[in-house]
Amino acid sequence: MSAALRELHDSLLSEEGGTLATYIPELARVDPALFGLALATLDGRVHAAGDADVPFTLQSISKPFVYARALADLGLEAVLSRVGAEPSGEAFNAISLEPGTGRPSNPMVNAGAILTTSLVSGDGPAARFERIRDTLSAFAGRRLELDEAVLASELETGDRNRALAYLMRNAGALRCEVDEALDVYFRQCALLATAEDVAVMAATLANGGVNPRTKEAVVPGPVAEHVLALMASCGMYDGAGEWLLRVGLPAKSGVSGGIVAVSPGQFGIGLFSPRLDVRGNSVRGVAASRVLAERFQLHLM
Amino acid sequence: MSAALRELHDSLLSEEGGTLATYIPELARVDPALFGLALATLDGRVHAAGDADVPFTLQSISKPFVYARALADLGLEAVLSRVGAEPSGEAFNAISLEPGTGRPSNPMVNAGAILTTSLVSGDGPAARFERIRDTLSAFAGRRLELDEAVLASELETGDRNRALAYLMRNAGALRCEVDEALDVYFRQCALLATAEDVAVMAATLANGGVNPRTKEAVVPGPVAEHVLALMASCGMYDGAGEWLLRVGLPAKSGVSGGIVAVSPGQFGIGLFSPRLDVRGNSVRGVAASRVLAERFQLHLM
Amino acid sequence: MSAALRELHDSLLSEEGGTLATYIPELARVDPALFGLALATLDGRVHAAGDADVPFTLQSISKPFVYARALADLGLEAVLSRVGAEPSGEAFNAISLEPGTGRPSNPMVNAGAILTTSLVSGDGPAARFERIRDTLSAFAGRRLELDEAVLASELETGDRNRALAYLMRNAGALRCEVDEALDVYFRQCALLATAEDVAVMAATLANGGVNPRTKEAVVPGPVAEHVLALMASCGMYDGAGEWLLRVGLPAKSGVSGGIVAVSPGQFGIGLFSPRLDVRGNSVRGVAASRVLAERFQLHLM
Amino acid sequence: MSAALRELHDSLLSEEGGTLATYIPELARVDPALFGLALATLDGRVHAAGDADVPFTLQSISKPFVYARALADLGLEAVLSRVGAEPSGEAFNAISLEPGTGRPSNPMVNAGAILTTSLVSGDGPAARFERIRDTLSAFAGRRLELDEAVLASELETGDRNRALAYLMRNAGALRCEVDEALDVYFRQCALLATAEDVAVMAATLANGGVNPRTKEAVVPGPVAEHVLALMASCGMYDGAGEWLLRVGLPAKSGVSGGIVAVSPGQFGIGLFSPRLDVRGNSVRGVAASRVLAERFQLHLM
Repeated sequence: MSAALRELHDSLLSEEGGTLATYIPELARVDPALFGLALATLDGRVHAAGDADVPFTLQSISKPFVYARALADLGLEAVLSRVGAEPSGEAFNAISLEPGTGRPSNPMVNAGAILTTSLVSGDGPAARFERIRDTLSAFAGRRLELDEAVLASELETGDRNRALAYLMRNAGALRCEVDEALDVYFRQCALLATAEDVAVMAATLANGGVNPRTKEAVVPGPVAEHVLALMASCGMYDGAGEWLLRVGLPAKSGVSGGIVAVSPGQFGIGLFSPRLDVRGNSVRGVAASRVLAERFQLHLM
Repeated sequence: MSAALRELHDSLLSEEGGTLATYIPELARVDPALFGLALATLDGRVHAAGDADVPFTLQSISKPFVYARALADLGLEAVLSRVGAEPSGEAFNAISLEPGTGRPSNPMVNAGAILTTSLVSGDGPAARFERIRDTLSAFAGRRLELDEAVLASELETGDRNRALAYLMRNAGALRCEVDEALDVYFRQCALLATAEDVAVMAATLANGGVNPRTKEAVVPGPVAEHVLALMASCGMYDGAGEWLLRVGLPAKSGVSGGIVAVSPGQFGIGLFSPRLDVRGNSVRGVAASRVLAERFQLHLM
Repeated sequence: MSAALRELHDSLLSEEGGTLATYIPELARVDPALFGLALATLDGRVHAAGDADVPFTLQSISKPFVYARALADLGLEAVLSRVGAEPSGEAFNAISLEPGTGRPSNPMVNAGAILTTSLVSGDGPAARFERIRDTLSAFAGRRLELDEAVLASELETGDRNRALAYLMRNAGALRCEVDEALDVYFRQCALLATAEDVAVMAATLANGGVNPRTKEAVVPGPVAEHVLALMASCGMYDGAGEWLLRVGLPAKSGVSGGIVAVSPGQFGIGLFSPRLDVRGNSVRGVAASRVLAERFQLHLM
Repeated sequence: MSAALRELHDSLLSEEGGTLATYIPELARVDPALFGLALATLDGRVHAAGDADVPFTLQSISKPFVYARALADLGLEAVLSRVGAEPSGEAFNAISLEPGTGRPSNPMVNAGAILTTSLVSGDGPAARFERIRDTLSAFAGRRLELDEAVLASELETGDRNRALAYLMRNAGALRCEVDEALDVYFRQCALLATAEDVAVMAATLANGGVNPRTKEAVVPGPVAEHVLALMASCGMYDGAGEWLLRVGLPAKSGVSGGIVAVSPGQFGIGLFSPRLDVRGNSVRGVAASRVLAERFQLHLM
């Protein structure tokens, strides 16, 4: 397995297409040549290749795990009444709110993720963020740190997310202060993890919510199942359908170049390479996902 | 298994919610009390309960099987260049064409299905329809007949489908005559099958394209996989995300009250009950799907 | 006045920008160098310059005059209940139908014009077309002929208009057969008029519905007023607001290169030059309108 | 004239339909029975009836006058490059920004008005607001005061306007700080004027930018013409087309119950009655406008 990952890593090093994300200035300073792959099995082993131990900010990869936290805190029906579960067919930053209610279409687009974050139990934004950090750390099996420079950069450039939050607040969908909701959201996006961490986080979902290394039951089994369903239908934004067709795995990508993918009952996969395609997905990450899915016959269908 | 189906059938008989489809007048004449369930296993056995031997017109249930035919005829890339694979987040009859090209968003909405039908190999509409009928018959393991009364009714009331076809033709997406494309499409919708037939058709997809009763390889394995991925992401229209969340099976519903659902590698399911919910899905069919998925732990994730 | 028109004509001859319409093949065969201007005063005189006596097909210039016919036949409220009066902010061939009812947004876009045509009194399409031809001829003060070659070309290429008509029929907005509605509509578009004719048609609207040459009361005064209001708000499609800002006259352009503009109580203007800008308006026609409006201080405000 | 206004006032007193605006809480505290009418002629006389001397906050009635200020400061082309001139066919608070650029569709919807306000010359928000207040005061011929209670109420409830501003800033369309832009915008909305003031403001536009009472040239003649054109095409939001059809005057309504209407070269009209129809226009104000337009034959066409 490790050899297969190393071989895959080497075969994709020549792929230098794509460009660094620029909309958060700090993200544009990363080394574009970085490339890490990791695969965690349900017996707790982690196979890795390349820069799998280099930390990067989770960005949108945080979304499914915070959704898991909200589902575990409130239950499926309560969460669904506030955030939909339908793919919007739109880009990650789309204004896809339900007419009248302002309910965002799903927790994987920014609007839905901001709202989901506001649902996590906690007395005030600081407590809510610590609960989120604890949850994501439990998924990873180690304490995740915050990248303060990226956080500062997000705060400066988050006008579109501010707009989404004000629209939701105006419609009554978002019920806390905009600044509080965004503060927590920007922090969760700036949490640092490695490809190995992400593989373990994914394996925890693959394993019914139980971290295969620490054996901690992070979220209940049905919550893990529901999160995976959302990743399958909405995880890859406006390319979700083609992803399910070609790769066939629940997954989520982030603008910093990470991808988390899950083979339920089998594996967790973490990928990191910062150059992005036009949809905002890591070029090498997408390519590696396809090869892995085919090589190990991971396609869900 | 058969006992479980009978029990499920009986427990849902009291569910009398929903209304008959009215937009095709002939469909409004069916007995609303009908209710059939069937489950086909990959060893070729079919378990059934209720009115599982009563034929109904396939309507949109035909779409995934004709998509399979087109994929097998042309290959994935050629088909994707003409019909997308993304959920549109819209209703079954939405005008969801790609700006500029007129490419429909996916083969499960009407626009995409009409275009997919036009892609099936065949010298003229009659030959193309016979090829489609042969394919669907091979999926079912017996010759499927046409309901001429429903066909006549569809021809009279198909103005929205005509509009979709003219829009696609105007954009250069549909390359045959509108009347020819619609003639074949309306015919495939009017093919008659029972819940038992549909279960076998589903089992053929679950079995990598090989009919588990006749052992015929109807389509190649990768084609079956691709069809199932499309059913998972786009099969239940604007409720596709919630369906994947709650039921977790690739599926497709039809306006005559049928549902086809597939548990890859395990089962094919055929359901029929004509009363529909507001989204156009069979009320009892949806309820039965949920129970079956939970009872036999069929959720993909 | 005539000298001013000749001077304007000569000054714009060097303007050779724009391209011929291509979506109706027959329109692409016209001499692109043609340029005619005419201005009709309310005392019945017509001033002209250039190719003001060369006939061209009216195309969308027919729309306000057929709308006048429908208003006179049915009354304002009855017409408004079937066709809206709001600018859609969209292009001429937009699918801008009111959700639910299928009511088109206004009579100046294709959908609204097709529906308006279907409202004109008449026993069958042939009678309806003759009534329309009689009306437009009365506006022009002479019998208008049909261009059979352009009509045949329109029939071949009218798929988008067919789509619009089927959508409206499906929604219950269009209540006659699609083929009948389109047959009459394509015919009215293929009626031939010169810039001089168009100037007289415009002067009839400027004169409260009375043709200033023949003295015939073609439509009642309030009908002329309502038609002019629609031309002011919706006549120039997605450029209507800027047109009203810069030129300040009720107007309507056609894809064959004609423009009709009206200075209420003062003048009717007819312009013809086939090269179009990206919005589908005659390049020289727009330029000439601006100069005329400024020179004679015709801006409504 | 005064007698005609009094008669009209009395005839509409029995019209008690409509409801007070509620989205700014402070506006819901006004006496719903108030009804004032005023008509200013170009010789400087003002005719009034009813509560024409009761001040109300201008709200959206401020938009055309601030647009006049921006046009006079920057010139037409510079302003058009930042704010469009096309009716969007949408409601006053619509998200109608040009894809890519974020340019709002016109200065009469909130997004466009916020941007227009940011274009007014001035060193910082305080200076910019004073320049706006000076301009509106010059239009009215007397110093306009600020309603601090309504301003505070707007600041509390302006989340949708904040969202619009953040969207425009994100797109690069709005180039100052969101808080600064909104601060000035909310202040201009909270300026107090009477129906008599509004009639004089309107008469100044009708008079080519020269206040008919003070004789001050507030804005150049072409600016007044351009403002009137924008009011005609976009002033009444999603009902602009029908307004131009039925009333035929450039106009603008505000959510506090005011309407300003202009008969170019003839009159300025100010109306105030707080109960609104579903589109947010004063019920009595709309009714009075129609009667006045018909009685004095003011229809532009």
